[in-house]
Amino acid sequence: MHSTAANAELALLVEVAGTPKPGNVDRERDLADLRFEQFLAGAVGARPGLDACCDPNFALGDGFERAVEGMAERADTNTQFGALLVLAPLVRAAATGELSRDRVREVVDGTTVADAAGFYRAFDHVDVFVGDPPEDAPDLDVRRGSDAVPAVEARDLTLADLMRDSADRDGVAAEWSRGFERTFAAGDRIATADGPLADRAADAFLALLAAEPDTLVAEKHGDDVARDVRERAADLHDATAGGGTDRDAVAAFAADLVDGGVNPGTTADLTAGALFVALERYGVDV
Amino acid sequence: MHSTAANAELALLVEVAGTPKPGNVDRERDLADLRFEQFLAGAVGARPGLDACCDPNFALGDGFERAVEGMAERADTNTQFGALLVLAPLVRAAATGELSRDRVREVVDGTTVADAAGFYRAFDHVDVFVGDPPEDAPDLDVRRGSDAVPAVEARDLTLADLMRDSADRDGVAAEWSRGFERTFAAGDRIATADGPLADRAADAFLALLAAEPDTLVAEKHGDDVARDVRERAADLHDATAGGGTDRDAVAAFAADLVDGGVNPGTTADLTAGALFVALERYGVDV
Repeated sequence: MHSTAANAELALLVEVAGTPKPGNVDRERDLADLRFEQFLAGAVGARPGLDACCDPNFALGDGFERAVEGMAERADTNTQFGALLVLAPLVRAAATGELSRDRVREVVDGTTVADAAGFYRAFDHVDVFVGDPPEDAPDLDVRRGSDAVPAVEARDLTLADLMRDSADRDGVAAEWSRGFERTFAAGDRIATADGPLADRAADAFLALLAAEPDTLVAEKHGDDVARDVRERAADLHDATAGGGTDRDAVAAFAADLVDGGVNPGTTADLTAGALFVALERYGVDV
Repeated sequence: MHSTAANAELALLVEVAGTPKPGNVDRERDLADLRFEQFLAGAVGARPGLDACCDPNFALGDGFERAVEGMAERADTNTQFGALLVLAPLVRAAATGELSRDRVREVVDGTTVADAAGFYRAFDHVDVFVGDPPEDAPDLDVRRGSDAVPAVEARDLTLADLMRDSADRDGVAAEWSRGFERTFAAGDRIATADGPLADRAADAFLALLAAEPDTLVAEKHGDDVARDVRERAADLHDATAGGGTDRDAVAAFAADLVDGGVNPGTTADLTAGALFVALERYGVDV
């Protein structure tokens, strides 16, 4: 049995290798401000934090913060913040029991105010990439980073509380609040599919993108753009469901997204989680 | 300061990402029986062994064997045996003193018969990919794997002795015997060059290939083919030395090598070592 943290690191690596993943960095595409090898470095840098997420003596929020810190140091940018937020509770569940939806729900329900503080502190490590909050930003705006911790503590908010409050506008928070339904379902699909693991991950990415609007796209470009992207992904996914993959059409879609600066990053985050499920729960090979 | 084992793992990852690397798997090319993501998995799988190479309580040969075992389990093929043989003494030197040629020489000179036994046992983990030895193979044929250990012990051969005996026909053994001159020089070049690290690694690969015939090519295809490959690499390297890189010409060279089944793997192994030097000694970023 491979180590849980190693499976999480490999999930990050295979996620970014999988191509085509329209709008995202993948083996065949860099973005203007994000290069493939920065994701490789980010995955290696996150490893000590992923190890900490395995250790029940470590607060989950601290493990997550450490993973983000190491990622940002190595990648010198924000490559995998969301993917690590997906992975942290999955890794903790796997390392301290089993990787089941019930066990992950227990991990989520067991989070504390200290975990919420770790989540906010994690933003300090990527703050130059996330931007400063406006002066009138709410107390709990994530751009405040650790400056928001007093407000979190005053309101006695756990990490699960924070995720529940963001679930309607953030696909990762939605997974936290709904027992990682989409992540596990995509992991099951990856595990039962055939072919190289990176190809299966790319297929899972397209299926996830076709099923629900990407919330990072919605946040940056509005709900209409996110809906359009979902519909176009769905058309492509339907067209390729018979087994044949129209790689040219997918590549054209990818090029259009990149031209528009549209980056479905949340869907990539869920894909990394799904790969971890496939590796850790089902022991798939690359 | 990043951990030494993490730098070694990242060196393996950036090595395989660097493109174009004519004749080898890289970000833009799989080979028929070797896929890119198998190298990602091999790097992750090698990590516990690389950690062991850092630990002076661990025999270096045992650390190397463990790295190869983990690599083969994860990749399900032989992706980075030679690169790990380059990295093992470099990692040990860095973790127990400093990453200098003098210190690496000390590590090499300090190897024992037990280290030699670990080297042979490592072949057991990749034996299905290396092939069986003919019945009349010499006692020390590496294809014998651990079956050769009694002969190693009877002759009181250290790992340094084995490398010295192979130095004229194996570019990795030559580095062991000559204080890793080419590896350090290439690492220095990578550290002082500009641009993304994976691009610098690909340039270093071409420079190494242009300088000396690749011994894996010589072993598989004969000295004439290895010489031809070196000359063609030298022409390309000269043509691009002015700063402009003729990526089309390099790509055409790569395609010819792949068509002929010519895989300059030893040169890739040295490139991984050079990347480790750049990361560990000079602290370069991706």
